[in-house]
This record gives sequence, structure tokens and C-alpha cells, in this order.
Amino acid sequence: MALWRVMLANMVRLGIIGLGNMGSAHVAGMSRIKRCELTAVCDLDEKKLDRYPDVKRFASSEEMIRSGEVDAVLVATPHYGHTTIGIDALQNGLHVLLEKPISVHKADCERLIAAHTDASQVFAAMFNQRTDRFYQRIRRLVKSGELGEIQRTNWLITNWFRTETYYASGGWRATWRGEGGGVLLNQCPHNLDLFQWICGMPSKVRAFCGFGKYHDIEVEDEVTAYLEYANGATGVFVTTTGEAPGTNRLEIVGDRGKLVYENDKIVFTRTEVPVSEFRASSKESFASPSTWTCEIPESNHGGQHTEILQNFVDAILDGVPLIAPAPEGIHSVELANAMLYSAWTDTTVNVPLDSAAYEAALQQRIATSRLDKKVVEAEVDMSKSFA
Amino acid sequence: MALWRVMLANMVRLGIIGLGNMGSAHVAGMSRIKRCELTAVCDLDEKKLDRYPDVKRFASSEEMIRSGEVDAVLVATPHYGHTTIGIDALQNGLHVLLEKPISVHKADCERLIAAHTDASQVFAAMFNQRTDRFYQRIRRLVKSGELGEIQRTNWLITNWFRTETYYASGGWRATWRGEGGGVLLNQCPHNLDLFQWICGMPSKVRAFCGFGKYHDIEVEDEVTAYLEYANGATGVFVTTTGEAPGTNRLEIVGDRGKLVYENDKIVFTRTEVPVSEFRASSKESFASPSTWTCEIPESNHGGQHTEILQNFVDAILDGVPLIAPAPEGIHSVELANAMLYSAWTDTTVNVPLDSAAYEAALQQRIATSRLDKKVVEAEVDMSKSFA
Repeated sequence: MALWRVMLANMVRLGIIGLGNMGSAHVAGMSRIKRCELTAVCDLDEKKLDRYPDVKRFASSEEMIRSGEVDAVLVATPHYGHTTIGIDALQNGLHVLLEKPISVHKADCERLIAAHTDASQVFAAMFNQRTDRFYQRIRRLVKSGELGEIQRTNWLITNWFRTETYYASGGWRATWRGEGGGVLLNQCPHNLDLFQWICGMPSKVRAFCGFGKYHDIEVEDEVTAYLEYANGATGVFVTTTGEAPGTNRLEIVGDRGKLVYENDKIVFTRTEVPVSEFRASSKESFASPSTWTCEIPESNHGGQHTEILQNFVDAILDGVPLIAPAPEGIHSVELANAMLYSAWTDTTVNVPLDSAAYEAALQQRIATSRLDKKVVEAEVDMSKSFA
Repeated sequence: MALWRVMLANMVRLGIIGLGNMGSAHVAGMSRIKRCELTAVCDLDEKKLDRYPDVKRFASSEEMIRSGEVDAVLVATPHYGHTTIGIDALQNGLHVLLEKPISVHKADCERLIAAHTDASQVFAAMFNQRTDRFYQRIRRLVKSGELGEIQRTNWLITNWFRTETYYASGGWRATWRGEGGGVLLNQCPHNLDLFQWICGMPSKVRAFCGFGKYHDIEVEDEVTAYLEYANGATGVFVTTTGEAPGTNRLEIVGDRGKLVYENDKIVFTRTEVPVSEFRASSKESFASPSTWTCEIPESNHGGQHTEILQNFVDAILDGVPLIAPAPEGIHSVELANAMLYSAWTDTTVNVPLDSAAYEAALQQRIATSRLDKKVVEAEVDMSKSFA
């Protein structure tokens, strides 16, 4: 019924749940979204609600979800809420757009995805970096077979620098109980999502984490992960919030050469013949296949959050395909979980990950998690976080 | 006695042992070396000896070493010979320049170094890449403290592409018995030497190797290693002979920014204040330290083999310091051994490595090593290997 009403009205009534850094930014960005009206906001903090006198205000997500005031919700609460509120909203017939990560751990992802039983409900995730034309182009190059079969991947994504003030700015931040992880769960969901979106999922993960290495936190702020894929390809993923200026360099090597994305340039060095063919057939000892250096033109980082939210609205009203269906969000969570589990157990972890085993291991850490850390008022300019 | 004679004559009489690819190249390069005369060559293969009718020819290194015809030897035999012939030459009072690696495994390095008891004998190793002004400059930047304390290292050195023909060109090649390893022992001694020369030795190594992954060989042709240093810094080293065009990119991150060497450019992105200080003191959540991008001018890759050989001669005649003292060659061997040992045992390996344990593990592989692989005639142009 509600769905028909939305389509007839040609307008989505949106409620935003969680008015922290991201939620406030989403409210501020609403003016750029067509055919979508912000009708309600929700937060536990009344002071935050008071900033929005023109819309319905709720201190309880349950109330907002059942209020009849919204057709869709955007959930931007601390991480664990993505699962619980997401399930509640889905079960009450709303369209749901979740901030990343869709859940903190794989078992919660499974519960969340299982709650999405009605295909007419649009269920999306805020993987805004999927709108970046550079990553879209790289994905097309890989998926089209231009690089040949992938044999090595390497992503150095260490430009997630964060200050102590950042971590002190919210009690939930960077705790097992409040956030369920560090750089892997907060900053890297984007990169882990793109990594699997472009290169597929690895079959094995061996990771090494620094916990509170650069900050006074209990979770990971540095990660080095070694990956193996089912076809025998290997990979490396390195991230940290402790380093400046940091690097964002993605290298993908295939049987037809290598692609490097760094400093806003995609360079594809293509071999004239497949490397495997040249390796086997050359009569010379020290020869290499001839290559062409192709600079792939791209200048546009896409519409980011705005594009994802508009796509969500357009999916509701017109049935257009989603850029980032929420169920695909399980992959980045699984990668993050596998890396942590590998570091905790000092073993190589198989993917698919045993979600129950991971949840149990996380619960142990939650049981002794400190939530008493000092919270300070921080100057926040989220525009600096969107890169 | 012999040493006095050399200094009075102001000329070093050199014998080259091993006339394979490298040995022949060294003979060809002799004309560029001052105050050094090639007086003898040695090889098991008479056909190779016959190419040099103007000098004394020996089928036995023992005979050459004891002949009185040479003051110094350059050993360019298959790897295991570096140790045995090196020890013999040292014990017979000669100056010795060894091709890399100085030995195949750490215990042999220890034996070799122990044989160097007379400080007046010059004992050097052919780490020609230490003459590269780019690497010299990077080392100076690190050693002078310009980067601050190192917190992360990353070397992708995958441009060692080799064909099947290369591996088939010598029976000893790429076997445990003949060469004692693959890409780590043959191609990477240079990089492993430079890595430790610039950044110091790690204290732990966890590596993942592909054995015969891209070629019909029993040894490693792909390696991904995770490193930990005593100060808590982490690192990654990736290499392979299976990929083209390959990458050579060295990134070193310190408390004062990062240095990247790639495509013949050194770029140092320096933070205005130490990262650790900014991280702790900034009142903002999403701020980063200001940086300056410094392109470090360098255009010269140095004299390479010629410079090392001339330096060896100058050290003999004038006592100038060596660019690459042979005892320092133990470090690159230890790193290579630690990586293999980690992959074999599927564990993290401590450095210093237990040299006896490694030797025993290598002996097991030598016992079942295949030396029956097909040998084919290959077109060899060593100038293509010197990069």
C-alpha cells in the first residue's frame, strides 16, 4: 500500500536516523536530491533534533519507523544500529539506505539480509565511492578482460589519517563495543567494497594488525593483509589512520599487463601479447613482452553521497538498478572480519569466513571493551572526510 | 708478501672464476677498469676458456688460486661456489670479490666470513646497485633523519621477468641443489641488500611464496613478505619473475612524511611538523599535517659493475673504503632465507635467523632436488639483465 502511495506521489518521504557527523551531512545535502523530501529526523540527543524544527523529530527509531511519516529511512547511527534499525525498518515495509558498514560482523549481515524478504522494498548501502568514475573505469577494464586473468593485486590505502581528537570525539568510536573495529570497520569499508567489486573476493586472508598502535584506542589502526584468490592470484592490502600524508595506490596485474591508479591517474601498461604466452614461447632468456603505456582519461569522481541517495530515490520511484545493493555490503564486512580474525588467531583464515566463530571472538572483545574513554568536543568538518 | 708486490706494482692481477653469463660480462668490461689486469680465467668448460687465448686458463679454481698468477679473484660461479671458492681464495691470501649472493644460506655466509681473518685482504661483494645514485640518495635521506623515524616500508620489485628459456638455460638454475633458491637468491639479492642498507634489518618475517608458480621450476618465483622491525615499523616486500612489465616502487614512510621512488623519480612528501606531534596535538578531527612535495633531483644510476670492480681495485691499491664489503652480504642472504623458511614452515620467523635450522631445511630440499631438467641453448644478452 505504502509503496503505491509513494509511486503515485512521485516523491519519497525520507527519514534520517542518526544526526552525528554523517547524518548531519546527509541532511545538509538533501537540497540536491530530486523527488525526495526530508520529513523526519531521529536521534537520541535532543539538542541535535532541535536543529531541525521544520521536520518531525523522533528520539526513537522504532517510533519513526512506525509513524507513517516516512516511506524510506537513511540509517547513519553508530555501526551496530545499522543492523538492528535496518531489520526493524525492513520488517515494517520501508525502503532502507544504510550507511557503511551494513553491519559490524558477518553474522549480523546475514540477519540483516535475511530480513529483506520483499523485493519491492529498495535496500541499498552508502558505498558512495562506487560512483567514482575512476573506480568504475577500473572495474570495467578488469571485468571486460582487458587486463587478462588477474595474477596480483595491491592496494596501499593509507591516507585515512586521523587525529587523537577524532577518536576522542565520540565515546563509541574505536571501541569493540561501540564500533566493532577500527580503520577496517570505519574508514575502509569503501576500499574493501571497491576491492571486491573490482577484483572479486579472495579465498584466503592472512593479516597483521596494530591495535592502538598510533592512537589511544583498543581497535586496529594499522593493517597489512596478504590475500590469495581462488585462481592462485595473490594480493596485498595495507591501511592505517596513523600516517600522513598517506598513499592511495591500487595496482592490478593481469596476464595482459598492469593497471596503476594513483594521484588521480589511471595508467594501464598493456603487453602486446599475453605474458603467459610470451613466457612460455620466447627463445630469449632476458626478453620481456613489448608494452604500450595507456593513460586512461578520467577526471570525474562522481556524485558520491548525492548520487547514491538519488539512485536510491530513483530505484524506489522508477525501479532503476541500484549502484550499491545493501546485500553486497556483506563482502566488505567479511573482508574486515577475516583480517581481524587472522590477526587475533595468528592464522590464515579461509573465506567464506565462519560467521559464528567470528561473532564469538568479537563478543569476547566486547565483554572487556572500554567505553569509558574521554570524550572531547571536536571541530568537525565532514567535507574533509569524504575523500 | 704478495700484497706488497701488488702495491709496488700499482696494478692488480685479476683472475675471473666462472665464465657464464656474468663472468663473461665481467671479462668484457675489464677494459674500463684502471690499474687492473685480467691475467687468468677459470671455468670447467674448455670451450669457454678457449675464448680467452691471451690469458692463463684454468679448469680448476684451486689451481688458479695457487698459481701465483693472480692477486685477486672475482668469483662468478653458480651460487654455492661463492662460498667454497671464496674461502679457498681467502685462505690463500688473495683479495676476493664475490658475485651476489655471497652464499646461498646464512651458515655458509658465517663460514665464509670467518675465513676472512686478514684485514689487509680486501673482501668485497658485487652489490652493483649500491652505486646507483638514486638509492644512495634515498639512503642518505633516511640515515640523516630527514624522514623521521621509519614507520612503514614497502617495496614492490616485480620487474624481474624471466622466460622459461632463461630457466632452461642452465641445469643448475632454479634448483635447490644448483642455486639454492629462485628469485630471492638470484635476482633479489640486490634489492634485499639495498632494503636493509637503507631501512635496516627487520626483526620478524612472514612470507608467502609461490614455488614454480609461473615457470617449470622447483624454487620460488613469487614472494610476498610481511616484515616487522624492532621499533614497531612494518613493511612489505613483493617480488616475482612471472610478471610483465612489472613494478619497481619503493615507499618509505616516516614520522616526517613519505618517500616514493618509482619511474626514475624520488618524491619526498614532507610534513611541516612531525606526524606524531600533529596527531597528538591537533584539536580537529579530520585535519592532516601540511606537506611540501619535494622532487629530489637525481639522474645518475652510477657506475654499477664497473664502479664496484674499480672500487675493489682502489681498495687493494689505495685502501679506499669498500662500497660493498662482502660481510654485509650476509644480510640479504638472511632475509632471503627467512622468507623461504617462513613459507616452508608456515610461521613467522625471527631475525636473526637460526642458520643451522635453515641449513637443515634446505638440505632436505636439496636431497630431493631435481637436476635433470632440460637444458636448452638460449640467446643471452646480459646487458638486459643489469637493470
